[in-house]
Amino acid sequence: MKVGLLGAGRIGRIHGLNVAQHKDAQLVAVADAHAPSAAALAGEVGAKTDSIEGILADQSIDAVLICTPTDMHADLIEAAAKAGKAVFCEKPVDLSADRIRTCLHTVKKAGTPLMIGFNRRFDPNFAALQRRLRDGEAGNIEIVTVISRDPGPPPVDYVKRSGGLFRDMMIHDLDMARFLLGEEPIVVHALGSSLVDPAIGAAGDVDTAAVIMKTASGKIAQISNSRRATYGYDQRIEVHGSKGMLSAANVPETTVSFASDAGIRGDVVQNFFLERYAAAYRRELDAFIQAVTTGKEPDPNGEDGLRAQILADAATLSAQTGQPVAL
Amino acid sequence: MKVGLLGAGRIGRIHGLNVAQHKDAQLVAVADAHAPSAAALAGEVGAKTDSIEGILADQSIDAVLICTPTDMHADLIEAAAKAGKAVFCEKPVDLSADRIRTCLHTVKKAGTPLMIGFNRRFDPNFAALQRRLRDGEAGNIEIVTVISRDPGPPPVDYVKRSGGLFRDMMIHDLDMARFLLGEEPIVVHALGSSLVDPAIGAAGDVDTAAVIMKTASGKIAQISNSRRATYGYDQRIEVHGSKGMLSAANVPETTVSFASDAGIRGDVVQNFFLERYAAAYRRELDAFIQAVTTGKEPDPNGEDGLRAQILADAATLSAQTGQPVAL
Amino acid sequence: MKVGLLGAGRIGRIHGLNVAQHKDAQLVAVADAHAPSAAALAGEVGAKTDSIEGILADQSIDAVLICTPTDMHADLIEAAAKAGKAVFCEKPVDLSADRIRTCLHTVKKAGTPLMIGFNRRFDPNFAALQRRLRDGEAGNIEIVTVISRDPGPPPVDYVKRSGGLFRDMMIHDLDMARFLLGEEPIVVHALGSSLVDPAIGAAGDVDTAAVIMKTASGKIAQISNSRRATYGYDQRIEVHGSKGMLSAANVPETTVSFASDAGIRGDVVQNFFLERYAAAYRRELDAFIQAVTTGKEPDPNGEDGLRAQILADAATLSAQTGQPVAL
Amino acid sequence: MKVGLLGAGRIGRIHGLNVAQHKDAQLVAVADAHAPSAAALAGEVGAKTDSIEGILADQSIDAVLICTPTDMHADLIEAAAKAGKAVFCEKPVDLSADRIRTCLHTVKKAGTPLMIGFNRRFDPNFAALQRRLRDGEAGNIEIVTVISRDPGPPPVDYVKRSGGLFRDMMIHDLDMARFLLGEEPIVVHALGSSLVDPAIGAAGDVDTAAVIMKTASGKIAQISNSRRATYGYDQRIEVHGSKGMLSAANVPETTVSFASDAGIRGDVVQNFFLERYAAAYRRELDAFIQAVTTGKEPDPNGEDGLRAQILADAATLSAQTGQPVAL
Repeated sequence: MKVGLLGAGRIGRIHGLNVAQHKDAQLVAVADAHAPSAAALAGEVGAKTDSIEGILADQSIDAVLICTPTDMHADLIEAAAKAGKAVFCEKPVDLSADRIRTCLHTVKKAGTPLMIGFNRRFDPNFAALQRRLRDGEAGNIEIVTVISRDPGPPPVDYVKRSGGLFRDMMIHDLDMARFLLGEEPIVVHALGSSLVDPAIGAAGDVDTAAVIMKTASGKIAQISNSRRATYGYDQRIEVHGSKGMLSAANVPETTVSFASDAGIRGDVVQNFFLERYAAAYRRELDAFIQAVTTGKEPDPNGEDGLRAQILADAATLSAQTGQPVAL
Repeated sequence: MKVGLLGAGRIGRIHGLNVAQHKDAQLVAVADAHAPSAAALAGEVGAKTDSIEGILADQSIDAVLICTPTDMHADLIEAAAKAGKAVFCEKPVDLSADRIRTCLHTVKKAGTPLMIGFNRRFDPNFAALQRRLRDGEAGNIEIVTVISRDPGPPPVDYVKRSGGLFRDMMIHDLDMARFLLGEEPIVVHALGSSLVDPAIGAAGDVDTAAVIMKTASGKIAQISNSRRATYGYDQRIEVHGSKGMLSAANVPETTVSFASDAGIRGDVVQNFFLERYAAAYRRELDAFIQAVTTGKEPDPNGEDGLRAQILADAATLSAQTGQPVAL
Repeated sequence: MKVGLLGAGRIGRIHGLNVAQHKDAQLVAVADAHAPSAAALAGEVGAKTDSIEGILADQSIDAVLICTPTDMHADLIEAAAKAGKAVFCEKPVDLSADRIRTCLHTVKKAGTPLMIGFNRRFDPNFAALQRRLRDGEAGNIEIVTVISRDPGPPPVDYVKRSGGLFRDMMIHDLDMARFLLGEEPIVVHALGSSLVDPAIGAAGDVDTAAVIMKTASGKIAQISNSRRATYGYDQRIEVHGSKGMLSAANVPETTVSFASDAGIRGDVVQNFFLERYAAAYRRELDAFIQAVTTGKEPDPNGEDGLRAQILADAATLSAQTGQPVAL
Repeated sequence: MKVGLLGAGRIGRIHGLNVAQHKDAQLVAVADAHAPSAAALAGEVGAKTDSIEGILADQSIDAVLICTPTDMHADLIEAAAKAGKAVFCEKPVDLSADRIRTCLHTVKKAGTPLMIGFNRRFDPNFAALQRRLRDGEAGNIEIVTVISRDPGPPPVDYVKRSGGLFRDMMIHDLDMARFLLGEEPIVVHALGSSLVDPAIGAAGDVDTAAVIMKTASGKIAQISNSRRATYGYDQRIEVHGSKGMLSAANVPETTVSFASDAGIRGDVVQNFFLERYAAAYRRELDAFIQAVTTGKEPDPNGEDGLRAQILADAATLSAQTGQPVAL
């Protein structure tokens, strides 16, 4: 399977290198508006550099990975689908749910596979938890709790273009909640504050937020977000069910601890998503390659991208208006 | 300090025995509508049995502990205050916030001390956490999370008289949130479901619930409740702040764990509030005795009882209407 | 059951107060060479003060607790046994195994029960571990590891009279090893160093030590001791068996932890034996009272006291000579 | 830096693939008596296959990795050193300390670098612990404890050729003890039993063992080994020092735990050395490449291989004779 990479920034590099090391795929071409980025990665893995148009026109390329800025995602998905490519696109598909709907319509007409990059589903810890949940270990699911806190806030310039915390950051947790609940939320209550960085508040966004949601059958989901955690990248899950509670704890930098008169001190948790989710990115790409190779529907697919976006829009609206949003 | 006990049921016995073992207090009289209960406890600690009226009329008694059914609390507080007794009353003061207000007014006029039994504030773990929070260890408080799950649901008959989950169970967590936030919530969003026991739902109550609240300065509180946790009495706290996160974990039955091919299995958490909060009840009583002896305002006092009740009412209303309640 | 207390020092007070709170026993008399100590405790619990001789001569007293300095233990055990009293004696019976043998002979002739105060067997954590071990949860026992470190070294004057680390401190761990192995060690290898306090070395003792032992069937025991642990009173057990490993961890002061850029810091472990083993002392006394009341052989008995002492002597000799000691 | 691989078995494959992915090195040739193994690996990484003689004679090859059976190690080290190659050799150098001495003499004369594969020194957890120890965090080192248990026993045929548990398995822990102590042990006491597999005992070896050692300054080391741990590959370290205790815990398969009425069950620990030490092998190879490239003495070097072997010999002798062995 021959793969072209659209966008060779931080996340593009990760996917590109993972393709290069995958036994069933080959990274053949890299495009990036910033030519040196494309050239550097292409050189490392023995691919050529090309324009986006060139890659889409190249009949020998089976699949593309879209890792460009968000505002190009939907257009590129459509163009790639029309060109007959299998598409892996980083989240979000678009900041507008309507635009996502038309995009998915185009993809459906083209009949090409589309997978969306909700990488956390592929974290070995979270994936194991979800599998055990589906196997019934915890019984009926009653309360899903997702705690997700970044090590530090992004630059305000990024915040301004991001669509806001709920669409940029919590969308991962909203997807995780759907993944774990196995049901769609029907109402969203959100609260947000700017407590970490006043500049984020001045930009009209929040940096601290909590959401509660309920499904038709009464299952409850809780999400807790902060743009800053001094102790590292806080990524935890708890699912309370009729038979017990499945939880996934943070991953420490090392297993070393120091016991002294100040207490027993373990290590900080892994600090950055590239480190914390390195295995998840590899497994995610492998799932994409497997789906394309076997002809199975990618999971998560475009519909998952749409539904997470709808929840993120609802949370954004709820936090702004102070009212719950029914779906 | 001479103490009379009104109500010698499960919680009354605990307080009665704690008084009997306290070096600065003496349990002199016990009243209970069920005479054998009063007689048994009185016999154990060398006190006499008496009627409630008798105890209130006894000039030698300095303080009373009100451990009767909830619907007698407010009347007894008033009567005891008018009789010049210091009063310790189990939560809640009353299921009606208005009734609490008139009761507190009576107490204020009488000028007698009133302490309300929010025992969890005196748990050594939670108390240490709160003290460290006040000392600034975690910096500015941003997100307070309280997880509170009972080992099993109460009988439906109890549920029907309880005022509902938010007033009967979550009130402890609402008080804890206030205790930790150091600020009053100004809005409450609640969701509830009946997932544990259909009979609870049939009785018009919920057994699974989540609340989010926000204070004027933007601090966020989250509470998660279930009437059943297979692994024991789940009582945890997390406070996320600008300098770090303070958390208090569950207390296991023992520190024993077993490592085998099935994993590393630690003990269940302490299963029942009498065991989990044994130290808290002793410390709570000691705080009451200290307050009365030194003439300091009891903490938590009647106002704390009122404010927790207002929050519980708000959560009940929010869960019923699906709308947030502003305070 | 009426109990007399011989010795009202630190450990005597604990046992005396526990008797006073036990439903099936009554502390009636207290003797101590330091009259004010006896008077204080007697006053607290409503007992009388008396001489040792007076207590032994008092026909109404069923049992005595011997909590005097070690060099009086054997004589008092014999005198009490001859007086027909049930005896609970703090460890060690004597610093000389030969003296213990003659003492046990006297007790046997008298036919009175004798229990030795190896309190750790009654710690709820260690007792639960041992019970599960006996129930076969870990399969065949292969390696028993006991880690035991005091929070700080005793005064050198105490060290000089103590019989040395192996007889004074490690004797608890040697008893624990026997308790867990369910078999007698047949060879002891010991190493000791003075690393914590040079004055201990100057006094001819060690403050840091390790022992390995083997039983006839090949089971191995390891013990690790230090007279100082900055993080509190380090008391841990691990038993490795054919089906898995049972372990008992330390007990922290609280369950509070703080996560920050310096790591995740839990509390120190409980610092002092009076706190760490408070429940063990209560349960130990209860076991003594049960044994005397029901006529069952106390456990641990005098023979256990002897065998622990023999192991402590062997470890002392091994550390001094650098050679293993066969038993 | 061009590298030749001698031996393409399980451990040879790991090193070979790590060379192939290293940015500063290139795997150019692979030799293995089993031609298909060499061909498979060579094909995967774009190297050629060759004979050992061919690789040693190839002037373009800078370094060799010796991953052959143990009985070829010393001869190949000498041959490679004489051929001017930098050498990385898997532990042990040889089962005879005398043979190691002559081998190291030859290497010294040749003046070529030699690194020995004590991979655990490069485990991120253990390496961080040792660095913090050297930085003085725990103060003076007093007790070093190494716990090392394999998930399951090797085949008896392997055991017979292995040199015995102390030379085959505990040698890693003896090296780790030296690494952490920063001092040489001067006396070794060992106990061993055959409890896991009677066939191991019948073959004259042990499968369960404990060692205690002391250094000239009085530091104590304890090692605990078993050939079987039902819960996975048990690899732990504790260093007790004057300022506190540094420890490195096991690495669980995932961070998922399940809380139920049976307790709180975490995952088993990583089960196999290839998984547990995957990062260690990468870091070890990197250290070798750095040493060769910069001309620094490799660490651990041949002398470390010799000293670990001497300790393993001493432990073997001690376990056989029941007497301590002075060094």
